[in-house]
Amino acid sequence: MRVLILGNGVMSNILKDVVINSSDTFVDMIDTKENIECDLDFDVIIDFSNHLATKKVVDFAIMKNKPLLIATTGQTEDEIKYIEKAKEKLNILKISNTSLGVYVMNEIVKLASSILEDFDVAVEEIHHTRKLDSPSGTALTLIENIKKSNENKEVQVNSLRLSNISGIHKVIFSAEDEILEIKHTAISRKIFALGAIKYARKMLD
Amino acid sequence: MRVLILGNGVMSNILKDVVINSSDTFVDMIDTKENIECDLDFDVIIDFSNHLATKKVVDFAIMKNKPLLIATTGQTEDEIKYIEKAKEKLNILKISNTSLGVYVMNEIVKLASSILEDFDVAVEEIHHTRKLDSPSGTALTLIENIKKSNENKEVQVNSLRLSNISGIHKVIFSAEDEILEIKHTAISRKIFALGAIKYARKMLD
Amino acid sequence: MRVLILGNGVMSNILKDVVINSSDTFVDMIDTKENIECDLDFDVIIDFSNHLATKKVVDFAIMKNKPLLIATTGQTEDEIKYIEKAKEKLNILKISNTSLGVYVMNEIVKLASSILEDFDVAVEEIHHTRKLDSPSGTALTLIENIKKSNENKEVQVNSLRLSNISGIHKVIFSAEDEILEIKHTAISRKIFALGAIKYARKMLD
Amino acid sequence: MRVLILGNGVMSNILKDVVINSSDTFVDMIDTKENIECDLDFDVIIDFSNHLATKKVVDFAIMKNKPLLIATTGQTEDEIKYIEKAKEKLNILKISNTSLGVYVMNEIVKLASSILEDFDVAVEEIHHTRKLDSPSGTALTLIENIKKSNENKEVQVNSLRLSNISGIHKVIFSAEDEILEIKHTAISRKIFALGAIKYARKMLD
Repeated sequence: MRVLILGNGVMSNILKDVVINSSDTFVDMIDTKENIECDLDFDVIIDFSNHLATKKVVDFAIMKNKPLLIATTGQTEDEIKYIEKAKEKLNILKISNTSLGVYVMNEIVKLASSILEDFDVAVEEIHHTRKLDSPSGTALTLIENIKKSNENKEVQVNSLRLSNISGIHKVIFSAEDEILEIKHTAISRKIFALGAIKYARKMLD
Repeated sequence: MRVLILGNGVMSNILKDVVINSSDTFVDMIDTKENIECDLDFDVIIDFSNHLATKKVVDFAIMKNKPLLIATTGQTEDEIKYIEKAKEKLNILKISNTSLGVYVMNEIVKLASSILEDFDVAVEEIHHTRKLDSPSGTALTLIENIKKSNENKEVQVNSLRLSNISGIHKVIFSAEDEILEIKHTAISRKIFALGAIKYARKMLD
Repeated sequence: MRVLILGNGVMSNILKDVVINSSDTFVDMIDTKENIECDLDFDVIIDFSNHLATKKVVDFAIMKNKPLLIATTGQTEDEIKYIEKAKEKLNILKISNTSLGVYVMNEIVKLASSILEDFDVAVEEIHHTRKLDSPSGTALTLIENIKKSNENKEVQVNSLRLSNISGIHKVIFSAEDEILEIKHTAISRKIFALGAIKYARKMLD
Repeated sequence: MRVLILGNGVMSNILKDVVINSSDTFVDMIDTKENIECDLDFDVIIDFSNHLATKKVVDFAIMKNKPLLIATTGQTEDEIKYIEKAKEKLNILKISNTSLGVYVMNEIVKLASSILEDFDVAVEEIHHTRKLDSPSGTALTLIENIKKSNENKEVQVNSLRLSNISGIHKVIFSAEDEILEIKHTAISRKIFALGAIKYARKMLD
């Protein structure tokens, strides 16, 4: 799989390292602040740039007619609609957290919520102090999934911003005399790169 | 729902209290050491007696032609076969842990294991110091479910016996740089009674 | 040790049961809404009534000249001063959380804070949905102790209100690449009675 | 502070990086398999080599008359005695885990054990699958500290070996209806380097 990376921030660079050290092929890493151009051959685009570049990124993928994995968050409604419309013509996947563990956590939480209807539910998340948005995008996605079986479910949510923590998410289901907790710990940001590659490969299959 | 309880140990008495304080109707609590007899009307039988009474319990349920929830553990192969055969004629459910949370935990663990194939897996359990078997029956069921998607999966298991802890079970999925933990805490044994009632109600639906 | 209990709410009744089932002697349980009177002999007074009775309780203890353990919270400044003044004549102890574990947790947190100066700190607490104040009194005491070595320390605090949880408190110290967590779980309110007895015994020694 | 590093393994290299990126000065990193020689000026020696080099390292420090922090483990009794004797002439500190959090954890555990005499105690530790010794040296030190107030205290200990976990240690104090847990998580081995520098600075003060 030949991978083209969009964005040149921390996550793009981690992904570049991971691709180089894998059986996949690194093609190029392109800053999306300028025009996005690439004359090399590639199989898939992984976007770790910034939601502000979303439209440009989608246009580029359509022009090249290649599968696009969007791993940025914070898109405006307008940008989300742009992605949705492009899906009619192109293989696009938008994932707020590419870690495999968080993917499973979301599946688990959907399942648990559909059965534990009477349980109180809370989401806790801890991230490094440089993270500006709160609650995290992943926490919001978890809440969405908790509410899938009951949209009126009240979900308490708590955030902490501590030192350099890569990301801890916990969902607590609590009823009279029993507690079920599901907790994901990201030890480093490398897992988001590893997960992105898995998602990209699935898009090609 | 009119509930007939079999057995007169700690769990049967907790269940009796729970039924009395609910919208359901408590019919009777019968010691299974003697002949099981009951002339009152009831809708469902919940068995918290002892696996040694299994055959007698099954015979009684068949005679009365009423749904039977078996919540005892430790059945011999012979007793298990007896239950299986009776299922041809009768609505029987055998559950090793009636807590709703543990039921969900098992479903979750099956789902997680089928996706997180490359993750290392461990089970931890903590119970009160009077508990003799180790690992707990619930831990063994969790391991069974972890292995459902890969019977050769190695699962580490650790047990602690501390003070009067009702039951804590944790499953840890660990891969490079990420950890997913699923933890169930039973705060009191009442949950096993509450769960039994839910299972019984489902059998009637 | 002959114990006189003041107050007749949930905690007073739990304490009564605990004393009766111990090697100590239960003397009486007195409602503080009326005049506090007792002609029986006793060695120590444990007050689980209500902060509104504080002055009456203190006067009674001074009259009887017996050690007084005050286990109620929410005292006004005026009531606190009344206690402080009475301490000149009488052996009085005021404890916001009589659980032995929480006492140790506070000692631990003072020690840890004094060494881990550069760590970010947060307090999390979870209680049942009937608890009105948030954060809990115990969380506030923990924060006070964290700030003892540095009054300008910023301490994040998060509260959840879930089902019937008796009380979970966690203090998180987080620095670059390491986390130290101290967590106390109250499984039932009985521990507050057990702890009160231990404090009372210490007062007599 | 001018730091001379002994040893050239993983930890020595991490320490080198940390010193270079700090306000301290990196002097040199010396392989202890050869003769230890250094003509440059330095203020402190940090030894992350191997216990087999202990005597050579001590001799070198005495000759240079500079404070020595020994951060290796597994010393024989003979080597320990050699260190003890050298302490008469030289400022030497031997630490089995230089993480500041683990230092505090040990202090905490000593304090908690001395008060929570009747609590059951257990130690859990999780490390990467390449770690051969089990329980970990840090777990053994924790148990030693737990036993300081009561040498006959029974301490249960559990180990798990999962993926690439840097080191998780938990001490559980459990009594009737309450649990106190103290947990340390090392997110990367960098903390052992950061801690070593703090210890070294303290030696100079």
